Amino acid sequence: MFEGPVQDLVDELSKLPSIGGKTAQRIAFHLLLRTSRTDADRLAAAIVAIKEQVAICPRCFNFAAGDLCRFCSDSRRDETVVCVVESPPDIIAVERTGEFRGLYHVLGGAISPIQGIGPDELRVRELLDRIKADGIVEVIIATNPNIEGEATAMYIARLIEPLGIRVTRIASGLPVGGDLEYADEVTLGRALEGRREIHG
Amino acid sequence: MFEGPVQDLVDELSKLPSIGGKTAQRIAFHLLLRTSRTDADRLAAAIVAIKEQVAICPRCFNFAAGDLCRFCSDSRRDETVVCVVESPPDIIAVERTGEFRGLYHVLGGAISPIQGIGPDELRVRELLDRIKADGIVEVIIATNPNIEGEATAMYIARLIEPLGIRVTRIASGLPVGGDLEYADEVTLGRALEGRREIHG
Repeated sequence: MFEGPVQDLVDELSKLPSIGGKTAQRIAFHLLLRTSRTDADRLAAAIVAIKEQVAICPRCFNFAAGDLCRFCSDSRRDETVVCVVESPPDIIAVERTGEFRGLYHVLGGAISPIQGIGPDELRVRELLDRIKADGIVEVIIATNPNIEGEATAMYIARLIEPLGIRVTRIASGLPVGGDLEYADEVTLGRALEGRREIHG
Repeated sequence: MFEGPVQDLVDELSKLPSIGGKTAQRIAFHLLLRTSRTDADRLAAAIVAIKEQVAICPRCFNFAAGDLCRFCSDSRRDETVVCVVESPPDIIAVERTGEFRGLYHVLGGAISPIQGIGPDELRVRELLDRIKADGIVEVIIATNPNIEGEATAMYIARLIEPLGIRVTRIASGLPVGGDLEYADEVTLGRALEGRREIHG
């Protein structure tokens, strides 16, 4: 066991994802020996700030620094089109294309029987409630172009179709098996342009 | 870019070793979505505490929660024997054997021409000053049993021998090429018992 405060930090860091005991130790030593007091304080403050200042948008489940996220609270966005994504980083990828001016809906993942994620673990019901309440005319499904994302798209399309609303899927201009978040703007922009109806 | 506080945390986390952009993002989301406010505060406090409360022992260069580290400030330790290690985790490994009651000296690494680490980057001069000033009768060199650690041991032995002090090297009961920190207590204990003189 290290001196109390060193061990405490190693223990706390080890609770984080992707950080094992050895990495936690390396980070603790780095903070102790190679990081300025200012930088360490800034990291600590950023951790506190994310919990204090960031909430989840009750409408689209994106991160929100206010009551609603910056898209839901922006009156210039087209409220009749909703782009459904798996997670907040995907929103950033879509925004970078400059091709979309509607709102978003963050599912919180994709259907994956192997990982035990079914529709009930995702915000699918909340999407249906929004569609019924908010006058939405088109739902663009932009889940990742891999097996889980396609299955999720088909599942959602099947639920939305009976509501008489246009459901589209971004075109597979993206390499299949890839990750939406890392797509370049041009490819993802083409994929948005080339979207087509899907029928579940 | 994420909402301000989220991006700030991703940026700060990305400065840490072993943490790339994708991992920083995963950790930030984890803190935001899956960590309690209490646990996040505890992590932030641990980061602040390590900078506020932990210093480097001016005598042996171990971590110190007080003026001197817990070994240097413990009058029951044998001040005439010093165990030289590369880094603080190695002290913990030696302590676990229960076979050593002397003091330590942390070099801060091992000689490695490839990494540009020469004797001047290590606390070798400080070790020699201690030996001359503190009435030390034996120096046990417990650097890692790999190429850099052996070279460092030989280098230090060559400097200490002229001072007429016993210089020993822990026995290679440890697998060569391994890492001192992960040795089991029995093996490392045997290595301490079987230490032998080295002549540089």
